[in-house]
Amino acid sequence: MIVTVGPNVDPSLVRAALIEHGLWVRRFDGLDAVQFFIEPMSPSVARETILKIEGVVDVAVSSPSTPRLDAHPSTLDVGGVAIGAGAAPVLMAGPCSVETEEQIHSLASEVARAGGSFLRGGAFKPRTSPYDFQGHGQSALRWLRTAADQHHLRVVTEALQPSDAPLVAEYADLVQVGSRNMHNAPLLRAVGATHRPVLLKRGMAATVDEWLFAAETLLLHGAQGVVLCERGIRGFETSTRFTLDIAAVALIAHVHHLPIIVDPSHAAGRRDLIPALCDASIAAGAAGVMVESHDRPGCALSDGPQAISPETLSMIGARMFARTPGGREPHVSNSSLRSCVA
Amino acid sequence: MIVTVGPNVDPSLVRAALIEHGLWVRRFDGLDAVQFFIEPMSPSVARETILKIEGVVDVAVSSPSTPRLDAHPSTLDVGGVAIGAGAAPVLMAGPCSVETEEQIHSLASEVARAGGSFLRGGAFKPRTSPYDFQGHGQSALRWLRTAADQHHLRVVTEALQPSDAPLVAEYADLVQVGSRNMHNAPLLRAVGATHRPVLLKRGMAATVDEWLFAAETLLLHGAQGVVLCERGIRGFETSTRFTLDIAAVALIAHVHHLPIIVDPSHAAGRRDLIPALCDASIAAGAAGVMVESHDRPGCALSDGPQAISPETLSMIGARMFARTPGGREPHVSNSSLRSCVA
Amino acid sequence: MIVTVGPNVDPSLVRAALIEHGLWVRRFDGLDAVQFFIEPMSPSVARETILKIEGVVDVAVSSPSTPRLDAHPSTLDVGGVAIGAGAAPVLMAGPCSVETEEQIHSLASEVARAGGSFLRGGAFKPRTSPYDFQGHGQSALRWLRTAADQHHLRVVTEALQPSDAPLVAEYADLVQVGSRNMHNAPLLRAVGATHRPVLLKRGMAATVDEWLFAAETLLLHGAQGVVLCERGIRGFETSTRFTLDIAAVALIAHVHHLPIIVDPSHAAGRRDLIPALCDASIAAGAAGVMVESHDRPGCALSDGPQAISPETLSMIGARMFARTPGGREPHVSNSSLRSCVA
Amino acid sequence: MIVTVGPNVDPSLVRAALIEHGLWVRRFDGLDAVQFFIEPMSPSVARETILKIEGVVDVAVSSPSTPRLDAHPSTLDVGGVAIGAGAAPVLMAGPCSVETEEQIHSLASEVARAGGSFLRGGAFKPRTSPYDFQGHGQSALRWLRTAADQHHLRVVTEALQPSDAPLVAEYADLVQVGSRNMHNAPLLRAVGATHRPVLLKRGMAATVDEWLFAAETLLLHGAQGVVLCERGIRGFETSTRFTLDIAAVALIAHVHHLPIIVDPSHAAGRRDLIPALCDASIAAGAAGVMVESHDRPGCALSDGPQAISPETLSMIGARMFARTPGGREPHVSNSSLRSCVA
Repeated sequence: MIVTVGPNVDPSLVRAALIEHGLWVRRFDGLDAVQFFIEPMSPSVARETILKIEGVVDVAVSSPSTPRLDAHPSTLDVGGVAIGAGAAPVLMAGPCSVETEEQIHSLASEVARAGGSFLRGGAFKPRTSPYDFQGHGQSALRWLRTAADQHHLRVVTEALQPSDAPLVAEYADLVQVGSRNMHNAPLLRAVGATHRPVLLKRGMAATVDEWLFAAETLLLHGAQGVVLCERGIRGFETSTRFTLDIAAVALIAHVHHLPIIVDPSHAAGRRDLIPALCDASIAAGAAGVMVESHDRPGCALSDGPQAISPETLSMIGARMFARTPGGREPHVSNSSLRSCVA
Repeated sequence: MIVTVGPNVDPSLVRAALIEHGLWVRRFDGLDAVQFFIEPMSPSVARETILKIEGVVDVAVSSPSTPRLDAHPSTLDVGGVAIGAGAAPVLMAGPCSVETEEQIHSLASEVARAGGSFLRGGAFKPRTSPYDFQGHGQSALRWLRTAADQHHLRVVTEALQPSDAPLVAEYADLVQVGSRNMHNAPLLRAVGATHRPVLLKRGMAATVDEWLFAAETLLLHGAQGVVLCERGIRGFETSTRFTLDIAAVALIAHVHHLPIIVDPSHAAGRRDLIPALCDASIAAGAAGVMVESHDRPGCALSDGPQAISPETLSMIGARMFARTPGGREPHVSNSSLRSCVA
Repeated sequence: MIVTVGPNVDPSLVRAALIEHGLWVRRFDGLDAVQFFIEPMSPSVARETILKIEGVVDVAVSSPSTPRLDAHPSTLDVGGVAIGAGAAPVLMAGPCSVETEEQIHSLASEVARAGGSFLRGGAFKPRTSPYDFQGHGQSALRWLRTAADQHHLRVVTEALQPSDAPLVAEYADLVQVGSRNMHNAPLLRAVGATHRPVLLKRGMAATVDEWLFAAETLLLHGAQGVVLCERGIRGFETSTRFTLDIAAVALIAHVHHLPIIVDPSHAAGRRDLIPALCDASIAAGAAGVMVESHDRPGCALSDGPQAISPETLSMIGARMFARTPGGREPHVSNSSLRSCVA
Repeated sequence: MIVTVGPNVDPSLVRAALIEHGLWVRRFDGLDAVQFFIEPMSPSVARETILKIEGVVDVAVSSPSTPRLDAHPSTLDVGGVAIGAGAAPVLMAGPCSVETEEQIHSLASEVARAGGSFLRGGAFKPRTSPYDFQGHGQSALRWLRTAADQHHLRVVTEALQPSDAPLVAEYADLVQVGSRNMHNAPLLRAVGATHRPVLLKRGMAATVDEWLFAAETLLLHGAQGVVLCERGIRGFETSTRFTLDIAAVALIAHVHHLPIIVDPSHAAGRRDLIPALCDASIAAGAAGVMVESHDRPGCALSDGPQAISPETLSMIGARMFARTPGGREPHVSNSSLRSCVA
């Protein structure tokens, strides 16, 4: 926003009035008039409100750049589950990768028991090393669907490339676009074209504006709706895996009025912080959380360290739904070796 | 931590057991033995627990580098107010700078009304530009103390240079070391030497480890105790002033077991996000929050845009103490110009 | 690397010897032995060298995780042009997007005149907003190829999705994987499968290790060779578009011995810094630079502000090849309005 | 800068003309006029130039916020050595900490032999841990001065707290304000008041603007002149200690026209990258470099790993003055243990 001060007006009075609204201002002096540029870190205030300030002669605004997203409801129905403002918090859980049919059935039952409504699990996995496990593909999708159905859960899972999108959309209630693909326009177009609701993770170095543009791309190409997912951004701190940008959660929820959930598993990478970060996310305005859970984290084919146990999952669910404060993750007591191959 | 695997043991079984404890491992192969380096982003697990894993022959650990801090209680009494785990959340509020005697009295009464227990306000101000207001010094300290006493509040205020420390300590219950000075060893020594409790803000680019070292320096030089304060770190996002590192709050509270509060005013810089970030901070494990409040933000001599009104302060207090969920900041309705000089 | 100290050896002597080699060490005390973990920010020193240090009984190393890349030559021949250590610096230039057939012919002739050997230009464009120009696709590829051939240049251009890869490979000498796609495994596999040399831009938030893993993925799937391209990473500084990580350039060139070029146009986003950053890149060890150039930047369909004029391009070429020091970009003198539609 | 477009003018023509000058623009629509905000990452273009664009009716600019710095010469004479544009590059070297009288004499002779003109060395050391060596204080200052004088070198050394400033100024030709103190206003005032030239290191998380404000503070309080020093900023990359912001060097040198040097030792923390980064710094526009050198890095009381040997220092000097390209640091061959206590 650019605010122009009229002639014969003391600019410092206008400045004070702008600050009174919480706006960060930078003053520029023209030949004819003083202008205040409103910095992006300012709260959202309506143009009309600013125009009413005595001494303000014009307020220039940028054109809406994400018109479809601006019209998006603050709550989205996904397979009968409401996600967003006013709705009960939503718990999504499951393994990083879908590993076997048995595993996903067992974990689905744990998710249901904890009060979860979505089963997550990767069928196609984006991995840093090409030598790591890349996912079981369509079989995994089938197992996910069956396991979810059996426990009255919905399925959220990721599409990795444009050609996967229709297949994933066939099995998933909510099609995920992962952090590494937030900037991947061909994938956004293909996923949008499935006309399903989409879970859009924030790129690990994406600004909020870039993230919203990616959401707009999905809607423009046909997505039925979007749920955003904050999953940690890159920073310098090494005691956690990424930096959970909790203020972005509050911003999306309370200023943009869009449904947003948080993935504290990737953000922190630390199992011992996940319960507290689930609580903080809901308190900040998140409509739910998505966590990685596993019954044998040591045997997980990917991201085992950040997976929580079924017990911790239950505790998180109990706190989310009952808002029971306090509680820490139960300690792992077992220290004898068990082979991962049963 | 470095874990050494014994001969004739399958390292992948030890790896699985380590991951079972949530540890991120990196494998190194020696001539004699396989070793796993435990990455810093891992949860804290006792050495004894790891030594009990079958096949582990040694666990090497680093020496405690902050012995005084490790012995610090998780709750600190500051002028009769308990700050930390188990205690009620603490609300600290007041203006960025102490501007006039009248102002600070009026704001103190608002802080007390909102349920706050500490009055904050800068007497010595660190400013980016040398041409900005630098604080009223000792007069401000006196006004602060009188205003606080009148409303049964404690005083928290910042010392900017070693020679200020004794003076500030005379007036403050809790002596603040600001973000820009977290790495300022001479100041830490001087503030420690006052033998008062200290509020230590995190440097805007400090890692958690560096922050803990600064706290250790304070204790080593005599500080009676330390309360840490997360106030946002530097990142790439421009829609907020800094990036509030909520995971660091959970880490300090739940893993290091130290008293920590959050300053969402500087972290977000946006008045519209402050209530939600207060809620999130308490949920993450913070022992309290410190916010900037002002009755006429447009007239504030510094950081006016991020100051909240007395009404918002009341609402934050009500939510902190009653845990009433929801609620947004009341809108500023007034849009006529008022001169800041009464 | 983990270094184990023998019994009856003073660990501080081993520590000193390690530091003598430039290694950053962190000490861990086991039940049986002292171990030093060598931090990642240390220079690369051979295991054998460390094993020769008196008192060292074992040195554990990680397995090579990018075996194909480790075997990659430090200089790659692309269409008869050598890129890498020992070879003359390579200049790649052209528009951000290929806009018209005339434009690309005219720019190709400028690139050739400046001593460039590669013509760059986007046929498929990754854009932040879905409403921005997305590229002319196959027509642009055809125009690029013809223009390049006419001026004895090679073509470097980007593939945006797996299904584009074969088509792009048909027209390009060097197939580009862009910054937003560095983590896009399906694209890396498809581009690798074309068996062409690949220009791999660093993801804007990718660590060097993640970047090398992406290069390995390309090679594993068939790429004939890889040239890395540093294009700036995300940071907090706003006076430039991104932060050019010059140390990563030196690291790739002098420690990893791989061909690397620099794209200062995206890194700085500022036309006035591009000549100096070209010089700095070559001095740091880059095998060449890739810059965006345009004859009418004001009419460019994308990234016009960062495009340099043909005159600046000539100056950069002259300095790269003659190593003439100094020089700044010529000023734009024209300030009358010209319509972009001829 | 804010550019206002006149009525009856096609804003897209003005936009094109602005981009023609390399400016990044954001469009805002007022009730009366279209305005373009020029983003901070744009090149510096004179207001007059923009006013000449057809259709532009006003150009609003911000008031100079660092008037003294704007009037600062681009070259500063420090003890008879010119530092800045047009002058020969300057080499500053010496140990991280001044450890003994013998050491500093021996290193001074190496610095002189390599063509250096400044001897550096810490008398007062800012350390992360309170248990680390904090410097020899005044004795170190005396040793530094004598050693420098004997080899016709100037002295650059750091003042850590306001009360040190006069003492340091007595011994140093160039008084250093370290990275951890860039935001320390009381220190800046005290150092300015010594009326000496000052070397101002960039804070590890400081923006260029904040850095310039700190330089202005020095000048406002009396500093005779300022040399800026880029020493790496905090980022996410862990294969180097910090991220050397080479574009900031080009910006300070070529746009702000101020003397700037680079400290690649702290920036990279890796001895193997220092020669290449020295070359790159000079190529980017730096007036010199400051490096840490040591004859027995393994025995250094601080930052040994990043210290270069006298041989590498000679090579750097040779390349800086003769501009001999290429060359790597000589390898450390010695691997037997020598006690650091002679």
